Amino acid sequence: MMEIILASASPRRLELMNMLGFEDLTVLPAVGEENVDLNQPPHEIVRQLAMNKAVEVSLRCGGQPLIVAADTIVWYNNKVYGKPEDEEDAFRMLRSLSGNTHSVFTGVAVFRGGEMDLRSEESRVTFRELSDEEIRGYIATGEPMDKAGAYGVQGKGAVFVEHLDGDFFNVMGLPLCTLAQMLKQQGVEVF
Amino acid sequence: MMEIILASASPRRLELMNMLGFEDLTVLPAVGEENVDLNQPPHEIVRQLAMNKAVEVSLRCGGQPLIVAADTIVWYNNKVYGKPEDEEDAFRMLRSLSGNTHSVFTGVAVFRGGEMDLRSEESRVTFRELSDEEIRGYIATGEPMDKAGAYGVQGKGAVFVEHLDGDFFNVMGLPLCTLAQMLKQQGVEVF
Repeated sequence: MMEIILASASPRRLELMNMLGFEDLTVLPAVGEENVDLNQPPHEIVRQLAMNKAVEVSLRCGGQPLIVAADTIVWYNNKVYGKPEDEEDAFRMLRSLSGNTHSVFTGVAVFRGGEMDLRSEESRVTFRELSDEEIRGYIATGEPMDKAGAYGVQGKGAVFVEHLDGDFFNVMGLPLCTLAQMLKQQGVEVF
Repeated sequence: MMEIILASASPRRLELMNMLGFEDLTVLPAVGEENVDLNQPPHEIVRQLAMNKAVEVSLRCGGQPLIVAADTIVWYNNKVYGKPEDEEDAFRMLRSLSGNTHSVFTGVAVFRGGEMDLRSEESRVTFRELSDEEIRGYIATGEPMDKAGAYGVQGKGAVFVEHLDGDFFNVMGLPLCTLAQMLKQQGVEVF
C-alpha cells in the first residue's frame, strides 16, 4: 500500500483515518504559521489553510507519499471562531452559539506527486439554548479548550447539538464521504 | 449518584453513555421478543419497542434504579429495515439505500419509580450512489451484519453517508441531546 502522511496534529483526525482502516499512516503535522486572509469566504479560508499544510509537509518529505491535510473552522455571524484563548473566551463563544445555527467548514487537501486535490465542505450545526451554568460546567470538563468554536461534537459537547445538517465527520475535522472519494482517485480504497 | 441501568446489548449505546461520562452503569439487556405491530407509524414502533424493553428490565430489578432503554430502526419506502439475516439480505438493503435518502428512528425510554418518559427522534440519511463492488467490499468487512439497515455510521459505513439531517447520535442508537434533557429531568446531569 502507498505511504500515507497525515499532515495534522489532531487526534480526532487520526482516529477517523484509523476508523476507515488506515492504520499505517505517518503523522507529520505542519508547523508553519497559519497565514491566511480571514476576509475571504470561509470555503476559501479552509481550502488555503489545508493547501498550505499539505505543501509545507510535502517539502519536508522525500519520495512520493500521499499527503492528507485538513483545516476546520467554526463560522458564525461572518466571523471565524478558532480555538479559545482562555476560559472566558470559550464562555463567550459558547454563549453566542447557544440557541443558534452556525457553520463548520473543513478544507481537505490530498497531495501527491505535484498534484493537489483541494475540496471543502460545510455542515450546519444548531445548538439548543444553553444556560450559563451549563456552559461553565462544560468548560470545567476541559473539553472546549483545544477545539475550534470551543466544543467537541464527539464528546460531551454532543448534548448541545440539537440538529446537524451535512456531514457529521466534517464537524469532527474530516468529511469522510468526500475524503474517501478523493483517496479512491489516487487508487487508495477503504474497501 | 443514582444507579443507572442501560437496558440494551448494543456496544455503541454503552460507548455513547460512557462518552457522556456515565461509566458506572449496569448493562442489563432486555431478552423478550420484540413484539410490535409494524403497521404503525415508525415513531410509534420505536417508542413501543423502547417502552417494552424498559418495562421488561424494570420487572427484573429491585429498588428504584433509573432505566434507559432504546430501539433504532431504519425506515425506507414505508418499510422497516432491521438487522440483515445474511449477506444477501445485507446486499439487498444497501443496494436499495444507495443514492437515496432514508430515515433512522430511535425511541428512548427513561423509566424510574413507575414514571415513563418516552420520546423518539428521526434523522434523515442520504447515501451516495454505491457500486455493487463497493457494497460487496463493505459486506466483506463484517460491519453490516449486526446493524439495522446493514450499515454502521460510526464505522467504514461513514463513507457512504453524503448527508445527514438530524441528530447524528440518533443514527448510532441514542439521540444524545434529547436523552441528556430526559436525564436532567431525573436529576442526572452530564455536567
